[in-house]
Amino acid sequence: MQMTEGGVTAAKGFVAAGIYAGIKKDKKDMAMIYSKVPCVAAGTFTTNIVKAAPVKWDQDVVYHSEKAQAVVANSGVANACTGEEGMRYCRETARTAAELLNISEKEVLVASTGVIGRQLPIDIIKEGVVSMVPLLSESKEAGILAAESIMTTDTIRKEAAVTFELGGRTVTVGGMSKGSGMIHPNMCTMLSFVTTDAAISKEMLQKAQSASVKDTYNMISVDGDTSTNDTALILANGLAGNDEITEEGEDFDTFLKALNMVNTALAKKMAGDGEGATALFEVKVIGAESKEQAVTLSKSVITSNLTKAAIFGHDANWGRILCAMGYSGAEFDPEKVDLYFESAAGKLKIIENGVSTGYSEELATKILSEKEVTAIADIKMGDACATAWGCDLTFDYVKINADYRS
Amino acid sequence: MQMTEGGVTAAKGFVAAGIYAGIKKDKKDMAMIYSKVPCVAAGTFTTNIVKAAPVKWDQDVVYHSEKAQAVVANSGVANACTGEEGMRYCRETARTAAELLNISEKEVLVASTGVIGRQLPIDIIKEGVVSMVPLLSESKEAGILAAESIMTTDTIRKEAAVTFELGGRTVTVGGMSKGSGMIHPNMCTMLSFVTTDAAISKEMLQKAQSASVKDTYNMISVDGDTSTNDTALILANGLAGNDEITEEGEDFDTFLKALNMVNTALAKKMAGDGEGATALFEVKVIGAESKEQAVTLSKSVITSNLTKAAIFGHDANWGRILCAMGYSGAEFDPEKVDLYFESAAGKLKIIENGVSTGYSEELATKILSEKEVTAIADIKMGDACATAWGCDLTFDYVKINADYRS
Repeated sequence: MQMTEGGVTAAKGFVAAGIYAGIKKDKKDMAMIYSKVPCVAAGTFTTNIVKAAPVKWDQDVVYHSEKAQAVVANSGVANACTGEEGMRYCRETARTAAELLNISEKEVLVASTGVIGRQLPIDIIKEGVVSMVPLLSESKEAGILAAESIMTTDTIRKEAAVTFELGGRTVTVGGMSKGSGMIHPNMCTMLSFVTTDAAISKEMLQKAQSASVKDTYNMISVDGDTSTNDTALILANGLAGNDEITEEGEDFDTFLKALNMVNTALAKKMAGDGEGATALFEVKVIGAESKEQAVTLSKSVITSNLTKAAIFGHDANWGRILCAMGYSGAEFDPEKVDLYFESAAGKLKIIENGVSTGYSEELATKILSEKEVTAIADIKMGDACATAWGCDLTFDYVKINADYRS
Repeated sequence: MQMTEGGVTAAKGFVAAGIYAGIKKDKKDMAMIYSKVPCVAAGTFTTNIVKAAPVKWDQDVVYHSEKAQAVVANSGVANACTGEEGMRYCRETARTAAELLNISEKEVLVASTGVIGRQLPIDIIKEGVVSMVPLLSESKEAGILAAESIMTTDTIRKEAAVTFELGGRTVTVGGMSKGSGMIHPNMCTMLSFVTTDAAISKEMLQKAQSASVKDTYNMISVDGDTSTNDTALILANGLAGNDEITEEGEDFDTFLKALNMVNTALAKKMAGDGEGATALFEVKVIGAESKEQAVTLSKSVITSNLTKAAIFGHDANWGRILCAMGYSGAEFDPEKVDLYFESAAGKLKIIENGVSTGYSEELATKILSEKEVTAIADIKMGDACATAWGCDLTFDYVKINADYRS
């Protein structure tokens, strides 16, 4: 099993396109993914009770359609808080694509990201769909264009792919995603699209997707705000020719492992490219009594504004980390905690049994000045652990979000 | 009942002092409050399971001593995560004050705020106590010096006082507090000290304090971080000569109302002076089914980084407010929500039944450009309501917290 180049067009039979349709001022704003043969689809969606229209549309497709074959995504406008009109525009978008692709409108998934509360410019969207269909291509470049078209405040496009063997057949899982603000656990990804040529039943695909999202996208946070549009979709078209995965077992585990690799890579890219971020901040809680406890503690630390600002300042202000663990709601003994900082510049024990080790501030600052920084808290209660990913809180986060709409 | 000038020395029999003892580089860093006669004391404390040594000390005094008579506070060092040594320093501080004042060490409350993880410079602290005792004065100026001495990143000192009649006697409640970061619901105030000359039993004082803190300090948030040191103390010495309040009833209600006025004023000053803040952001949720629901919704909005950054940018990005309500965990129908922005510049309906009213962006920006800005969400489910206070998220918040320790 190895990471490979590419994204949504890496797996056999998937084509994509990305264009500037005219929703945003000057950046690419529409993407399309299409499988040459019907797929099974699975998805996880925002837990926010304010759900954007495309989330409701996709839930209906994923839960009630046997098959799906295309995704139409746009950036610039989120189609959230748009009432009945917003739902109608989802249908019109899907219908336009369905007619051109000769499939049912209920086999087209849609996704939007951008400003909340504005209606989609539906004529532009429909023209965009018409323009994209002839551009659909299985090339890497087409995948790149699609990944670029769903970016909002993202500074880098996010793609990842893995190939592996399943019963003698080469299987590929590839995907793309976009961050980068309003990102917080509880189906935190703004948008993630993964494609695979694995043969797998719809039920097992959903099982793999739900398990993987929990350990990947739901473990990152940029700003504690859970979006109205969070959507993580996966399409599997079976063209790899492996024996269909219809139950748990070795093949399922292998597939899940590959999916986790892709989703972890995409999640870390989202966290590290959080709005205004200068560093990826990883928090590992080890020695926990239960996975749940480790998850609660690690998430509390990556969402602490004070900790995030200290990371931006390369300041080993470990008290804020212990403080964030303390208000997480999880029980532990602060006087037993060991804490380490680690990065490419080294590893340093900062506190032992809740009290400072008298570490070198100079070395600590050096460790915290890297682009990827890890804090490891050992709470000495058991064998469970969890890893969460976030980013630092910077001047640019404030700048980006003070005037996002203008 | 009316607001009056002054703070902890406003009520009869209370004296105070504030000095530069040498804990910080160049700002006043120690304060003392003393009542000429013994008081009953009540307090509420951080819910963080990482509790600073002075919190543990004060809990012991409040829960187990019949009387209390003095408070010694310092800024600069929080005495949190300091183990046994930290507890010993609380005792030494209290003992030094007790010997000079001829009271028991268990009648002295202590409080600290500042950097977590460093030991108190105990010799400086003890010398500071010795210096403060002869300076104790009932003057307004002494109250001001005390209020200034507990400031850390605060930019203004925080005092408030109220006088009212109780059975023909004039009663005063006055207090001081400090913010301004690491402020979040769950006993959110960093430090608050209120004094009153009301005669009231210890039990009823605690009842009033707990009720008041819930509606005031616990309804503000600066950054979502619940401190290790949060402490809100109240001392009542009975010198007003009113009939002692020993049960619920009219007198208790009057006292509670006065206490709420003082605590609300202090809480709003803390929120408006949140680290780097340029505006006080008030969120009212009305038409709720229950108080609890209104509290959950209003707090979720004031803690949303994205909303706070939009307020800083004077951007009527209402979708973020609806989004923050949506992930709060409280149930409501987003398609029934009306939302208003209000300030000294006017009041504007922004959304009606979950959809934009097509309001004037220009007027909205004007309203959001004031120093105090209110968002009112009507969820049309019942008669309950709640108000929460926060502040905007600014460049300066990041700056202050990126290098707080240096």
